[in-house]
Amino acid sequence: MSRVYLDWNATAPLRPEARAAMAAAMDVIGNPSSVHAEGRAAKMLLERCREQLAEALGAAQADIVFTSGATEAAVMALEGQGLACAGIEHDCVRAWCAESLSADAMGQVALSDPAGCALQLANSETGVIQALPEGLAVSDLTQGLGKVPIAFDWLGIGAGLVSAHKLGGPRGIGALILRAGADRAARLRGGGQESGRRAGTENLIGIAGFAAAAAAAQRDLAAGMAEKLTDLRDRLIRRLEDADGITMFPGRESRRLPQTVSILTPGWKGETQVMQMDLAGFAVSAGSACSSGKVRSSGVLRAMGYADGDAGCAIRVSFGGATMPGELDRFAEAWLTARARWQGRQGR
Amino acid sequence: MSRVYLDWNATAPLRPEARAAMAAAMDVIGNPSSVHAEGRAAKMLLERCREQLAEALGAAQADIVFTSGATEAAVMALEGQGLACAGIEHDCVRAWCAESLSADAMGQVALSDPAGCALQLANSETGVIQALPEGLAVSDLTQGLGKVPIAFDWLGIGAGLVSAHKLGGPRGIGALILRAGADRAARLRGGGQESGRRAGTENLIGIAGFAAAAAAAQRDLAAGMAEKLTDLRDRLIRRLEDADGITMFPGRESRRLPQTVSILTPGWKGETQVMQMDLAGFAVSAGSACSSGKVRSSGVLRAMGYADGDAGCAIRVSFGGATMPGELDRFAEAWLTARARWQGRQGR
Repeated sequence: MSRVYLDWNATAPLRPEARAAMAAAMDVIGNPSSVHAEGRAAKMLLERCREQLAEALGAAQADIVFTSGATEAAVMALEGQGLACAGIEHDCVRAWCAESLSADAMGQVALSDPAGCALQLANSETGVIQALPEGLAVSDLTQGLGKVPIAFDWLGIGAGLVSAHKLGGPRGIGALILRAGADRAARLRGGGQESGRRAGTENLIGIAGFAAAAAAAQRDLAAGMAEKLTDLRDRLIRRLEDADGITMFPGRESRRLPQTVSILTPGWKGETQVMQMDLAGFAVSAGSACSSGKVRSSGVLRAMGYADGDAGCAIRVSFGGATMPGELDRFAEAWLTARARWQGRQGR
Repeated sequence: MSRVYLDWNATAPLRPEARAAMAAAMDVIGNPSSVHAEGRAAKMLLERCREQLAEALGAAQADIVFTSGATEAAVMALEGQGLACAGIEHDCVRAWCAESLSADAMGQVALSDPAGCALQLANSETGVIQALPEGLAVSDLTQGLGKVPIAFDWLGIGAGLVSAHKLGGPRGIGALILRAGADRAARLRGGGQESGRRAGTENLIGIAGFAAAAAAAQRDLAAGMAEKLTDLRDRLIRRLEDADGITMFPGRESRRLPQTVSILTPGWKGETQVMQMDLAGFAVSAGSACSSGKVRSSGVLRAMGYADGDAGCAIRVSFGGATMPGELDRFAEAWLTARARWQGRQGR
């Protein structure tokens, strides 16, 4: 039987719209900074993509600076700003912030000084969505973009980070979204691209894929994708729910992404579950995919107050528009079988 | 008649090998940091590409860190190192160095302290090739890679910068090459990719295109491409050479790239030439393509001792393996016609 990919929050499969846009961009040979016809055609494509992304983000008033991903956007947005964040943030945000905020057991972060803080829109592991306070300095929008509606211009935040490969665009392209009037020093220098904010010839093929994927995700959202995925998610949770009440679903009581489920079974290591599911034909993850395959106890769950041991016993199932209900049913069946085997070995 | 693209040093057309490798990489859905089968397949592709690039660079002993381009690699190699460079370097190198070295009229830079200097392998405007001294700290190899043989492990330099889109790979991907034992602090943090040296999910499609293009360029070189292009270049120069001796070819007396010609006609602005040639169907450039279409007097030529006025009167013709001899002949004809018109207006 074919494999089932349920790790979309690590990297989503490339959308056909992105693939087509990238193939078309491969024929645009010019450098967007060149003044001849080929250069102008490349520049025109670049600016069309920027408008397309702005529309998907509701960011017509904002400035969009294309970067090599959300990690680079995080450096630009956060380095030297002295912001505070909570332990639920992605490592690329935590790298530049003081981790002085805390999350509650539902994964929610309360802020008293939004102008001094970074706060994500949605969590990659639990899917928990934050209510972003007006005046927030920086928000990592990466896991929310394309999954819940975003109207950047209305959020009243200073800067946002986004990435293409979480919503069906290619890996290695992202953007920093700056509220009109906000600015950040260029980290990559010597070329003047992106209005002097980010030097280096633009990744035009990647940008074309990003914009097309973001536009397609917006169309999906408008057509009711979030509702469809929420139904799939809740059906999965119902199938996994315990008679004996061991397994937990962190973040379940919060408003959260429609296609992310965190599943925590105390005593059954997440790493083991991932390997067993992988052998059974299902790709899921334990925590974030980063750190080169190193699997650690989830910092996100620890920040929500789960004990270190329990935080190492969670897996994340994340999916998307191409996921078939039957695939999630097959996963549930395989996981319940593996859990029964584990329980048998525990003498439970 | 179809247009003729003679601005390969700004961005080379995508090689068919790169396009095919990118299309194949689009089907590799995993995140290279994920531990499941899909993640391991992505990781395997990533490492295969790294080996392919290492082979093209003669850098089997070195460490290759993929970046979003040579500009990002320059930040990693140069920031905080206090190196010296000459005015012929690319802006992304000059941004981080003291410009205390000088070039001679042939475009050559002499160094007394290689460990304290950055020196390019080949110049983007004149094509002039430097003899890189043993012990050199950093070399921008971007314009040389794929055009002249490089054996990084034998050069005895600390770090090299390379980019894909100058040799027929996609825009937005490059690498920092580090001699074994050398290291640089990560600029992008929070993820642990690239052995902790560069965080952020890898641009796998771009990397696949880069490696395939570099390998194809190496095959071309082995099959005599440099000789073929040198013949085309010299034939072009012969056709453009003056009876009256006004036009100069900066760098002509130096060893230089086989596919780059700098053409300087004092009094006839490079910017004007570029526009006239563009209208006539030929894409050439005046100086570097950077700075968002802003055309300035060439810093490279000024660094070689040309007067400011003359340095603004050069164009660059650069081409590659797909360029047909007849295309260069057509260019020569159009340029000579335009020059005769200009001379007529000058009453020469």
